[in-house]
Amino acid sequence: MARNLDGFNFEQRHGKDRVRVGRVWRNKDGRHFFVEWSVSISLLSDCVAAYVRDDNSDVVATDTMKNTVYVKAKECSEQLSMEDFAILLAKHFISFYHPVTSAIIKIVEKPWERIYIDGQQHEHGFKLGSEKHTTEVILKKSGTLQVTSGIEGLALLKTTKSGFEGFIRDVYTALPETQERVLATEVTASWRYSYESLSSIPPNPHCFTERYLDVKKVLVDTFYGPPTQGVYSPSVQSTLYQMARNVLNRFLDISSVELKMPNIHFLPVNLKNKDNETIVKFADDVYLPTDEPHGSIQASLSRFWSKM
Amino acid sequence: MARNLDGFNFEQRHGKDRVRVGRVWRNKDGRHFFVEWSVSISLLSDCVAAYVRDDNSDVVATDTMKNTVYVKAKECSEQLSMEDFAILLAKHFISFYHPVTSAIIKIVEKPWERIYIDGQQHEHGFKLGSEKHTTEVILKKSGTLQVTSGIEGLALLKTTKSGFEGFIRDVYTALPETQERVLATEVTASWRYSYESLSSIPPNPHCFTERYLDVKKVLVDTFYGPPTQGVYSPSVQSTLYQMARNVLNRFLDISSVELKMPNIHFLPVNLKNKDNETIVKFADDVYLPTDEPHGSIQASLSRFWSKM
Amino acid sequence: MARNLDGFNFEQRHGKDRVRVGRVWRNKDGRHFFVEWSVSISLLSDCVAAYVRDDNSDVVATDTMKNTVYVKAKECSEQLSMEDFAILLAKHFISFYHPVTSAIIKIVEKPWERIYIDGQQHEHGFKLGSEKHTTEVILKKSGTLQVTSGIEGLALLKTTKSGFEGFIRDVYTALPETQERVLATEVTASWRYSYESLSSIPPNPHCFTERYLDVKKVLVDTFYGPPTQGVYSPSVQSTLYQMARNVLNRFLDISSVELKMPNIHFLPVNLKNKDNETIVKFADDVYLPTDEPHGSIQASLSRFWSKM
Amino acid sequence: MARNLDGFNFEQRHGKDRVRVGRVWRNKDGRHFFVEWSVSISLLSDCVAAYVRDDNSDVVATDTMKNTVYVKAKECSEQLSMEDFAILLAKHFISFYHPVTSAIIKIVEKPWERIYIDGQQHEHGFKLGSEKHTTEVILKKSGTLQVTSGIEGLALLKTTKSGFEGFIRDVYTALPETQERVLATEVTASWRYSYESLSSIPPNPHCFTERYLDVKKVLVDTFYGPPTQGVYSPSVQSTLYQMARNVLNRFLDISSVELKMPNIHFLPVNLKNKDNETIVKFADDVYLPTDEPHGSIQASLSRFWSKM
Repeated sequence: MARNLDGFNFEQRHGKDRVRVGRVWRNKDGRHFFVEWSVSISLLSDCVAAYVRDDNSDVVATDTMKNTVYVKAKECSEQLSMEDFAILLAKHFISFYHPVTSAIIKIVEKPWERIYIDGQQHEHGFKLGSEKHTTEVILKKSGTLQVTSGIEGLALLKTTKSGFEGFIRDVYTALPETQERVLATEVTASWRYSYESLSSIPPNPHCFTERYLDVKKVLVDTFYGPPTQGVYSPSVQSTLYQMARNVLNRFLDISSVELKMPNIHFLPVNLKNKDNETIVKFADDVYLPTDEPHGSIQASLSRFWSKM
Repeated sequence: MARNLDGFNFEQRHGKDRVRVGRVWRNKDGRHFFVEWSVSISLLSDCVAAYVRDDNSDVVATDTMKNTVYVKAKECSEQLSMEDFAILLAKHFISFYHPVTSAIIKIVEKPWERIYIDGQQHEHGFKLGSEKHTTEVILKKSGTLQVTSGIEGLALLKTTKSGFEGFIRDVYTALPETQERVLATEVTASWRYSYESLSSIPPNPHCFTERYLDVKKVLVDTFYGPPTQGVYSPSVQSTLYQMARNVLNRFLDISSVELKMPNIHFLPVNLKNKDNETIVKFADDVYLPTDEPHGSIQASLSRFWSKM
Repeated sequence: MARNLDGFNFEQRHGKDRVRVGRVWRNKDGRHFFVEWSVSISLLSDCVAAYVRDDNSDVVATDTMKNTVYVKAKECSEQLSMEDFAILLAKHFISFYHPVTSAIIKIVEKPWERIYIDGQQHEHGFKLGSEKHTTEVILKKSGTLQVTSGIEGLALLKTTKSGFEGFIRDVYTALPETQERVLATEVTASWRYSYESLSSIPPNPHCFTERYLDVKKVLVDTFYGPPTQGVYSPSVQSTLYQMARNVLNRFLDISSVELKMPNIHFLPVNLKNKDNETIVKFADDVYLPTDEPHGSIQASLSRFWSKM
Repeated sequence: MARNLDGFNFEQRHGKDRVRVGRVWRNKDGRHFFVEWSVSISLLSDCVAAYVRDDNSDVVATDTMKNTVYVKAKECSEQLSMEDFAILLAKHFISFYHPVTSAIIKIVEKPWERIYIDGQQHEHGFKLGSEKHTTEVILKKSGTLQVTSGIEGLALLKTTKSGFEGFIRDVYTALPETQERVLATEVTASWRYSYESLSSIPPNPHCFTERYLDVKKVLVDTFYGPPTQGVYSPSVQSTLYQMARNVLNRFLDISSVELKMPNIHFLPVNLKNKDNETIVKFADDVYLPTDEPHGSIQASLSRFWSKM
């Protein structure tokens, strides 16, 4: 979509961010289903005239994009996954508007979870949970499709079975080696599905939602290991790699996975007072949690050779 | 503690905020227990000389307060509730420092929850949940004690069984009456215990933690009503009052409760296009969630006459 | 306003928070004046029936309160201070609605500042600055008025002329004494005007805005001292007291002032490597800035004896 | 740096984020210079063994990276631009560590500005401003260098001389055309310098800082137009393009510029009450500012053909 303007190379996109929509579906048996989505739309389109000639005739107003989210949400009389809703929106924008060549739809779902009262599902009650389901769909007029899903804010911690040894030691090194530390992270995961055209998308309207839960379970189970004993982590790097590999090995409809796992430090507390007496001596018990600075470890694993 | 200085009335306090501490307790059977607390300390003390005569000799350095949190956390070899930890800190500050007349300790617990793998509790794995447990302890040298506990960020929503009718209608009124709307709020609750001295505090180190869970269950159950059918809410005010009253009726060790329940609006979406055609007609299905503005409803209920 | 309900003491208020309004006034000479306010309204009123008898007939809907903000902003055909706007709103609510006994109006102004292009004021261009002007007006049906104004987020720092010595030293003390440190804080100030009824408010529509700038200048000048040399701060406490006293001494229309001045630490960096060699030795040059934990110092100074 | 592992394509990086450092330089004449930087380091390196064979022998510990920031800050005995500091760090990491093939250094500067007291510069007093200067330096072992600088949080608003007309009108369109609206945005800008190797970097330690101020002035001046009259904006797109083009035309050492300019809406307020009477009729005076949803307009302009 690059264009030569005034002798310069020019690229642009425009859209609407943070379009919030809530959707309720009501079953005949009295059960309600509910989602709250924050939708971002970005269009690549042939509207260079707006930039250079003050001619907006090829511009889809971002207000119009926002309205479309509500119209389409209304039209969805059956509950569907947010990936399917993103695809439906993308499809609309590339087909309805002549100048639009690509649509990029991102959705973040607010984690409303059905409430349980004394172990029983509530018909219409929902409570906010923690980590968030995300998706990004890119659809080109040519028919090329990318569907990526992910998790944001999945904060995990284990109080043992983690260490870090044998790293490079030089004049700038102060960190002691250890076989026993707290390991904490806030996982941001994204995985790309292998579907590359609209026709290859599975027809079940819940399959993306189920797969999201499946992937989350594999990530979580791999991070912690078995309920008794757990599993030793020799580095965030190693744990991250096991998590990514288990996702690809388990789910053949996923072609690549990317994980960002900041190392959120729980520093051992050792304190001396003004007379140089030790007043707190650390014994795997008292920690100082800190958000900054933090380690940043990220990697991607894919079935085919592609760039991160 | 007010003082007359230069002809003015003077009041002051100083302390340390956001002291973060993580504490692990390890059972012999391999189970770990873990908390992460953010502690705030505020001392009322007779240190006016620091303000007016550059004489710091009665000032407890806030760095010293911070160190004390770690020393005391280390000394707690058995797990205890955060209320008990706050009391222990307050007791230290008023007894150890001559100029200190009152200590105010606030703690917010990060909601790390034990993880379940295939239905089984993990020995040492924890995952971040949503709403937060808080406490505030005020202890005076005279022995007077206040223990308040609370919840922050408890976001609740129901998709039906809520309405709002019969309110004042005047020239500024545009809101239609309704018997059917989404009701959403983020509850901030605090309740004061009836214990008024250190000797009256119950000895069980987990009783405050259990009571926190009990109160949360009453608040939640009252908000939603039974799993089937739920309960009709004629206003946020009415629902709030039921929640507060049920807490006081149920827990005799609680002397007052305060609830803040912002009305977080889910606006019905009705859209007309440029030609004045209706393109979305609301039928209890598509909503626009919005954080600002929001209603603010708050009230307190207490066994005895006191100020909010 | 406390009420006896079901044998309990009951107090309540309701309102609307975060009502955002932008207002443009256009001079005949082409100059525009612009403010953006976030308004919060809270009403004390006799509407207990809504809580206990599902009867909303004495409830002012919060949506109506929101509308009123826009109607009143529209009616203000001449620019006025936000304190005057808050008073105008409060006056409306207590006089228009029979059940309302008190109105509490808070406003935070977004710090849009007129832009200068090559030293010249722009007619209609504004750029976001940093600290924020706030106000809170409380007006009772009885006619009692409180007008408080303030500043939020005034972040100040000086790289020298600050120390802290002679404080209490005990077994928990690790902090060294110093005559040379960075002093940084984020001031939250509020001051109450001596006007106690509507009739005593000065008629000049800009006087509160001017006073806000005056007070800010006194706070800032006192914190830093003269451009050359500055002024030595022996503690945050001492500097805070000078700032508060200068405000009261200078402005006779202000009856009390409260300052919160967290001590935001810039820790001296001293680093040893694994071989216990010093790799960074601090010489008033390299600091680690940290937001948590931070000291919390706050005090109020008033002409008359009142509670903080 | 992609690697074939277990039949999968693998890419990774690791580093340290949010390393905060304050640096004071003291002139002999009593003037102090001060910066506060938040540094992020990310290294591409040949340490795959850590991921797959639990062998950390090629891993630079992120704690070591953090220490290095302080050591290098200490070594900078003369003030330098943050771009030069980022280059210095990057150079260290790629040359000191054999496995490291690329270093990516990002810095965000906290906008501490020298304070003026009665028009005179203060020797050692600083106050927090608004928008932030950012940089990203990428240096490869091969010698290839990229230096990008930018601005974050530059919030601009004008109360007139803005419109939007002639856009696509269809069944989803509700937005009226206008020649008069408030235009508000929060600019995120980044520009890449043409220096492509260490030897081409200009020796003046302040040149990047000066260029940052130059670019900001061009962006701001173009947005607003002359102090009297201003300049008409027919769309965010058009204004953005003028801003980008002016930067490239003016600064030959800049090879490309990218601008993100969300359209932050100030909605005209028109209100009808329950009886369908108009209670606020908009006349370019009363607006509802809103952060969500917002338009998103972004574009890049470069001297040579490259991907956005």
